[in-house]
Amino acid sequence: LATPLEPLLQQFREGSKRAAARLISLVEDQAEQAHQVMDRIFADVGTARRIGITGPPGAGKSTLVDRLTERYVTTTDLKVGVIAVDPTSPFTGGALLGDRIRMGRVVDEDRVFFRSLASRGSLGGLSLHTTEVADVLDAWGCGMLLLETVGVGQSELDIASKAQTTVVVLVPESGDGIQAMKAGLMEIADVFVINKADRDGADKLAEEIRVSLHMRADTGWEPPVLLTRARDNEGIAEVVDALQRHHDWLISSETLREHNQRALRTRVRDLVEDELKTRLWSDASIDSMLQEGLLDIEGGTTTPYRLAASLLDAYRRRLQDPEMAANRFPR
Amino acid sequence: LATPLEPLLQQFREGSKRAAARLISLVEDQAEQAHQVMDRIFADVGTARRIGITGPPGAGKSTLVDRLTERYVTTTDLKVGVIAVDPTSPFTGGALLGDRIRMGRVVDEDRVFFRSLASRGSLGGLSLHTTEVADVLDAWGCGMLLLETVGVGQSELDIASKAQTTVVVLVPESGDGIQAMKAGLMEIADVFVINKADRDGADKLAEEIRVSLHMRADTGWEPPVLLTRARDNEGIAEVVDALQRHHDWLISSETLREHNQRALRTRVRDLVEDELKTRLWSDASIDSMLQEGLLDIEGGTTTPYRLAASLLDAYRRRLQDPEMAANRFPR
Repeated sequence: LATPLEPLLQQFREGSKRAAARLISLVEDQAEQAHQVMDRIFADVGTARRIGITGPPGAGKSTLVDRLTERYVTTTDLKVGVIAVDPTSPFTGGALLGDRIRMGRVVDEDRVFFRSLASRGSLGGLSLHTTEVADVLDAWGCGMLLLETVGVGQSELDIASKAQTTVVVLVPESGDGIQAMKAGLMEIADVFVINKADRDGADKLAEEIRVSLHMRADTGWEPPVLLTRARDNEGIAEVVDALQRHHDWLISSETLREHNQRALRTRVRDLVEDELKTRLWSDASIDSMLQEGLLDIEGGTTTPYRLAASLLDAYRRRLQDPEMAANRFPR
Repeated sequence: LATPLEPLLQQFREGSKRAAARLISLVEDQAEQAHQVMDRIFADVGTARRIGITGPPGAGKSTLVDRLTERYVTTTDLKVGVIAVDPTSPFTGGALLGDRIRMGRVVDEDRVFFRSLASRGSLGGLSLHTTEVADVLDAWGCGMLLLETVGVGQSELDIASKAQTTVVVLVPESGDGIQAMKAGLMEIADVFVINKADRDGADKLAEEIRVSLHMRADTGWEPPVLLTRARDNEGIAEVVDALQRHHDWLISSETLREHNQRALRTRVRDLVEDELKTRLWSDASIDSMLQEGLLDIEGGTTTPYRLAASLLDAYRRRLQDPEMAANRFPR
């Protein structure tokens, strides 16, 4: 049974954290109502600052995010949202995230919203959902959104690129600058943080990064390279300061406006593509055509390319059917 | 001007390495002829063993791949194909791959085909292209395909999962077992290699991995954990042996057949989705509708969700047009 939306939206607007959590669940579960919910709250989206935190496993991203959260909650009156994107782990489930429940201990629970998102194997979907969950928290009133991505792959870079400011966290052990370059991190970083900076090689790594940055095209913003020990709360104020300076630059240079326009365009395209694919593969006649075609390929009577052509033709014909033509978007 | 296909396909069938390289370029450039080429060679695809090599940056994957290549070329009469998937780096370009040109020095050039693929920002596309490039090398006669992915993100895992056997390479410094678990590597590994095994902590890491593996559901295959020093050519024979044992198990357990069926299904779905998206966004009337709609969203008169609904309606109507209804697949 569908959740009655109006009372939920009313509670959400009154600031209920529980209502925000339920709206996020609707989005995550791709409920029929998800698009409707997002459409209804869209007018309230747009005030949150969105900060991406990325880097290799083990760099201390979670600790840094915790410290930043504490800092924002204690020194401002902002609500802070944290979204942690994790690869799906079928056998460990959510267990690895258990330690993140510590967030509630140190900070005002009413002003911090923590949510972890699993990838569930669908990259485009994850990218879209991350934006939508961020929008719910934005509309709920979070002035600051921290978007933490585990890993250094292309998908994580894509998600980080949705942030207005991207922080790349490295540790001396993560190797020399060339490794960060290989992972594509140099291009997306607005702020570098070398964490666990009391270990050997921190200054050397900082220097390598600064040298590499000279190869980057001049955008008007030179990414600072900061040293922290997040576990000991060292260097956090400098990170907060760098984030503020980057935000000011984004606004004065009009970069923020361009960023937001690009993000909106990607968002609309993702929505359309996602709906097209969902409609396509959930249609019973298309699905049985796919099943039979796969057997034909194994039997050597057709190829993936000829089957794809037939499926596209069939889809086009099916779209004449009013039921297929309908979509889940509000009007 | 389109390349004349018939002479190229003829040379390809006669074993020309140059012709293989040109077919791969057609696929990479998404040339109009790409689907046609793939359709024509499809009957010759299916004999190559596909081995994925993945793990964090700096683990020594490239060196391991080089050693395995040398070993296969010197101890068998197989042709070996190597596909290295790299994240795009706009300012470093392909420079970081320069060191890979060393491949030709040590082994018979006629029997080794090395190709690196950049992600170009499109994940679905990369995943599909990797399969297609592998298919070209398979049809060209490579008995062994090594698929190396840089990074540990979800997209790299997706690509690795296209391989029949996945090798996860770690180094003692890459941290404890929990980091590998966080990165989702435990689930996809068929063989673990701890490289640079003369460094401190190698045995401890091996033990942690073995313990973690006990948490994994029993599939009938227990991933071996091997120690290597690829730079010194130590432990390579044991890796070759483990790969053979895994291959034998894949066949005897019918797992290979299931794997191939799943891969084929994904492949057809990717082809259809890719073509749908390409047709959609390259249509001028859809594009101008998108542009105007984005301005309306900024002006507050519509939302991404209402715009997406309009775009889907427009696409459905456009598909009545024979030009839009056409697709690039052979019939």
